[in-house]
Amino acid sequence: MENSVHASGHGGRGPAIEPDALAWYLDTITRQLQRVGITRAVVCPGSRSTPLVLALDRTPAIHLDVLVDERSAGFYALGLARARRQPIVLVSTSGTAAANFFPAVVEASFDRVPLIVLTADRPRELRGVGASQTIDQVKLYGTHVRYFIDLPSPEPLPAVIRYVRNQVLHAVRLAQSPVTGPVHLNLPLREPLLPDWERVPDGPPALPLIIPETQISNQCFRQAKTYLGQFPRGIVVAGPGSSDSIESRLVHWAHSWGWPILADPLSNLRHGNSPIITAYDLILRTQKTPTPDAVLRIGAIPTSKALNQLMVGLPGVYLDPSEEGRDPNAQDLLVVGGDVGTALATLANPPDTYHVDTSWISSWQHAEQAVRGHLEGTIEALGTGYEPQLFFHLGHWLTPLGPSIHPVMVSNSMPIRDLDTFSLESPSHLRFFANRGANGIDGVTSTALGLAAHYGDVTLIIGDLAFYHDMNGLLAASRLHLNALIIVINNQGGGIFSFLPQHEALSEETFESYFGTPISLDFRHVASLYQGAYERVTSVGELGHAMRRFGPLPGLRIIEWQTVSRDANREAHQAIVHGMRLP
Amino acid sequence: MENSVHASGHGGRGPAIEPDALAWYLDTITRQLQRVGITRAVVCPGSRSTPLVLALDRTPAIHLDVLVDERSAGFYALGLARARRQPIVLVSTSGTAAANFFPAVVEASFDRVPLIVLTADRPRELRGVGASQTIDQVKLYGTHVRYFIDLPSPEPLPAVIRYVRNQVLHAVRLAQSPVTGPVHLNLPLREPLLPDWERVPDGPPALPLIIPETQISNQCFRQAKTYLGQFPRGIVVAGPGSSDSIESRLVHWAHSWGWPILADPLSNLRHGNSPIITAYDLILRTQKTPTPDAVLRIGAIPTSKALNQLMVGLPGVYLDPSEEGRDPNAQDLLVVGGDVGTALATLANPPDTYHVDTSWISSWQHAEQAVRGHLEGTIEALGTGYEPQLFFHLGHWLTPLGPSIHPVMVSNSMPIRDLDTFSLESPSHLRFFANRGANGIDGVTSTALGLAAHYGDVTLIIGDLAFYHDMNGLLAASRLHLNALIIVINNQGGGIFSFLPQHEALSEETFESYFGTPISLDFRHVASLYQGAYERVTSVGELGHAMRRFGPLPGLRIIEWQTVSRDANREAHQAIVHGMRLP
Repeated sequence: MENSVHASGHGGRGPAIEPDALAWYLDTITRQLQRVGITRAVVCPGSRSTPLVLALDRTPAIHLDVLVDERSAGFYALGLARARRQPIVLVSTSGTAAANFFPAVVEASFDRVPLIVLTADRPRELRGVGASQTIDQVKLYGTHVRYFIDLPSPEPLPAVIRYVRNQVLHAVRLAQSPVTGPVHLNLPLREPLLPDWERVPDGPPALPLIIPETQISNQCFRQAKTYLGQFPRGIVVAGPGSSDSIESRLVHWAHSWGWPILADPLSNLRHGNSPIITAYDLILRTQKTPTPDAVLRIGAIPTSKALNQLMVGLPGVYLDPSEEGRDPNAQDLLVVGGDVGTALATLANPPDTYHVDTSWISSWQHAEQAVRGHLEGTIEALGTGYEPQLFFHLGHWLTPLGPSIHPVMVSNSMPIRDLDTFSLESPSHLRFFANRGANGIDGVTSTALGLAAHYGDVTLIIGDLAFYHDMNGLLAASRLHLNALIIVINNQGGGIFSFLPQHEALSEETFESYFGTPISLDFRHVASLYQGAYERVTSVGELGHAMRRFGPLPGLRIIEWQTVSRDANREAHQAIVHGMRLP
Repeated sequence: MENSVHASGHGGRGPAIEPDALAWYLDTITRQLQRVGITRAVVCPGSRSTPLVLALDRTPAIHLDVLVDERSAGFYALGLARARRQPIVLVSTSGTAAANFFPAVVEASFDRVPLIVLTADRPRELRGVGASQTIDQVKLYGTHVRYFIDLPSPEPLPAVIRYVRNQVLHAVRLAQSPVTGPVHLNLPLREPLLPDWERVPDGPPALPLIIPETQISNQCFRQAKTYLGQFPRGIVVAGPGSSDSIESRLVHWAHSWGWPILADPLSNLRHGNSPIITAYDLILRTQKTPTPDAVLRIGAIPTSKALNQLMVGLPGVYLDPSEEGRDPNAQDLLVVGGDVGTALATLANPPDTYHVDTSWISSWQHAEQAVRGHLEGTIEALGTGYEPQLFFHLGHWLTPLGPSIHPVMVSNSMPIRDLDTFSLESPSHLRFFANRGANGIDGVTSTALGLAAHYGDVTLIIGDLAFYHDMNGLLAASRLHLNALIIVINNQGGGIFSFLPQHEALSEETFESYFGTPISLDFRHVASLYQGAYERVTSVGELGHAMRRFGPLPGLRIIEWQTVSRDANREAHQAIVHGMRLP
């Protein structure tokens, strides 16, 4: 009965009606999205996308957040998807609106965050002829999506409707398997743009989503175990995004093999467990630790440059579900796909011939103790207003924000590096996040607010340039009534550049023009604009006090920390490293 | 002497040295850019782009502007390029930084603005392996650039150096011919990133740019003239971007053929010349004007929806240098390429058999007089705070800003439509601009500040949502010491949606959530943040007064005009149209 269609919305079977193509098409899309478990959509206002937004609005299982700036909206959706670990729908109208999603789409692609981007478009007969708000949206995000499809315009034909349903299902599947990430569906919609929901015929039924598991063969595991069994002095590197669900298996593995776990702050494993080493960045820069002969890697690339340098060419095994081979250090790596927890359990016992060298792990633990002891003294001995101090105290200061999970978003550039180096332990209810897919300083605030939308609150630590870059993101806090504590480390410009070679090679004027780039904004006005609480502090004592005072409050709270000069901060970093360097 | 290289920078010939590959490569690029007339570059801070920025810094002919937010920087470069009518170099570091240029690149592509986008990238051995700030930048902007090339990394080989020089020349040519627009060169740079300028060998010489003229054959012109000669009652439609240099030829043409010129506000031809009709939007919506039988089109698509509807299927000739066929109305058009002025001169005299119908143009002139007279009365009779009032008075109020050219940037969405409908005449020193390539509301403020950087000042007219969208753009005003008068029409949300069908079809709550989207920002704080003068007004009298007072002042000046409600504004528009509708 190919062409027979019936009235009645979702299931009833009334007299035959003339279906409304637009309504039928959109109803099919939103029912399919609902069927596969989509619960949130982030939409940006526009004309061409009107009927899509209305279709989502009448889908009870999908909650909509409306944001005006598409760039910020994209990162907000990214944060929400990362927190919820499920795909988020992201909607824009046609034209440059869709192009504004690009930075968030790129980050989502590299950080493997599932986003279902739906862009409204003009119908095909208005493309390439200079029509208003009509750009080439075909493959708009290039290689940065897992899937792109330019859907047909709505037609009241069952073949078209079923095709659209299947494409939605297919795209949602590819957003989650084999590697989670963004997908893009382009919807060319003709005027009139108001669907008639009374004229939606029956079906087709929405289909369930089935994602196959990747099974790794026993032979593959045997190979990996044999390979690792050659190396008596290995390290485990737990990079960003190591799932906390594998913590106990990982610790068990490390105990069995006698290898220390070097845990990136974004692994969220820095809770004081015994085989876990967290001061490795300072250890590697200051102590004479024996060189490891192999590595077991999980998660993404670690933050520490010293650790990455240590891994250059190092043999080992990489447990990565996607088997994408994230390996900038050109190691000798066997990549084992599938579930990381399963792999850890299967590989837990070393070969019978394997000899655990207990002196190996204890040498790391001694170095850890030495560095930690030294660091505490050095941090206290610094004057006040040095960036490392915040990160050293962070876990302690944020402890009252438990006991439920409290997300802490850390900006790229210096904050994530300082977190890595100086924040050595924190309570397990703090969960750290950063945009480590492409490591940009864009969209950081919006990502944090996406986390807040899921967890109920967030703490964001960010420098002044990154805070400026995504100031528009703050609108989400006021419009969507989110709670967020933002600590702006204001060192008047790009602090990271003081650590790069150009700082020494250039005149101060040239350096400040192109790299320091002080923006001289008084962020008090930003707090006023978005109706947030605000406090400016200088000493680290004031900072800790302000954080404890602002921590439990609702709404938007901004603490602007005016630190010492970028030069003084760089010197403090150097002094810390120099002071603990072994002769 | 393929492999012989010599010291000495630009031309001296010293003893043979070991060239510094990075310095030689970048020196070649910047000398070539200088040679083809590049005088301005807009750069965004970053690490990977460091040596490129330093190379531009030592190129005396190229002035650098440093901006922090790449999205705003892209639009600033766009405004600058549009004002100067020459390509502007735009530089970013690797990663999402480059993705933030995308909206401006898309707008530049559709509005034919030449931009030379130079993105730093990681070297090829760091791609696809999860390295920091490394994304796939190959063809990053897809079909939205005229040319893309992924350059080789620096090598001290003459073949590589000459190749790079030639690619720069080729890209700059394609940014200007056959259709001006953006091009993208991707520069994969290895560490160390500090060039040694002492080790730059001689040459290769920078080459001049030669752009061929498009010559249209006499036969082609004869065909076009014969075609037009069939139609006694035509109209000339001068769309956005009609060059002012052709004004006298256009007026001469229209006189000879007896056709009225319907001049879009962005044609910058609304100076009261006799065959020029400017009230056509209201005429077509209210008067019974005889239907034209043909059109001579120049420039881009006009703003007026009524005029576009009039042109649906209309025969005619389109004088368009690019021959791209911008024709969303699917007309019967002959497209004539080449220089528009030449074509107008060549086609100036109708065929001998052509009979000029003088009643035709006078019918348009009568309609113009009728509508203008009516409009004046209606505008005065309105209460105060209605958006059309600003546009009606605009030319008069901005007259004191002469006598040199004063640019007026008008935002998309309602302001450009209201300018079209209600701003019927203005002094010739006012030059109107808008982003009509993709018609987005993004990047409008930055584009205006790019104009200010060339003309010395700018007036920007913008709604509250578009102003919010590009607030970051205001940093250019304070950092680069630009003069700008910004009139924010604050109608608390998306005014244009009140004119679309969803306004009637939806509940007020649904409409406000998804389309009205009031953002409730007090822009006084924005002025404080960027150290601008600020005044909030409500009545149109206060607005005119504030504009006259702020007009001649230096620096950033923001006037926030709180208008009547969006509903009241829509009713006023309808009343104006209704009141002048012929029975």
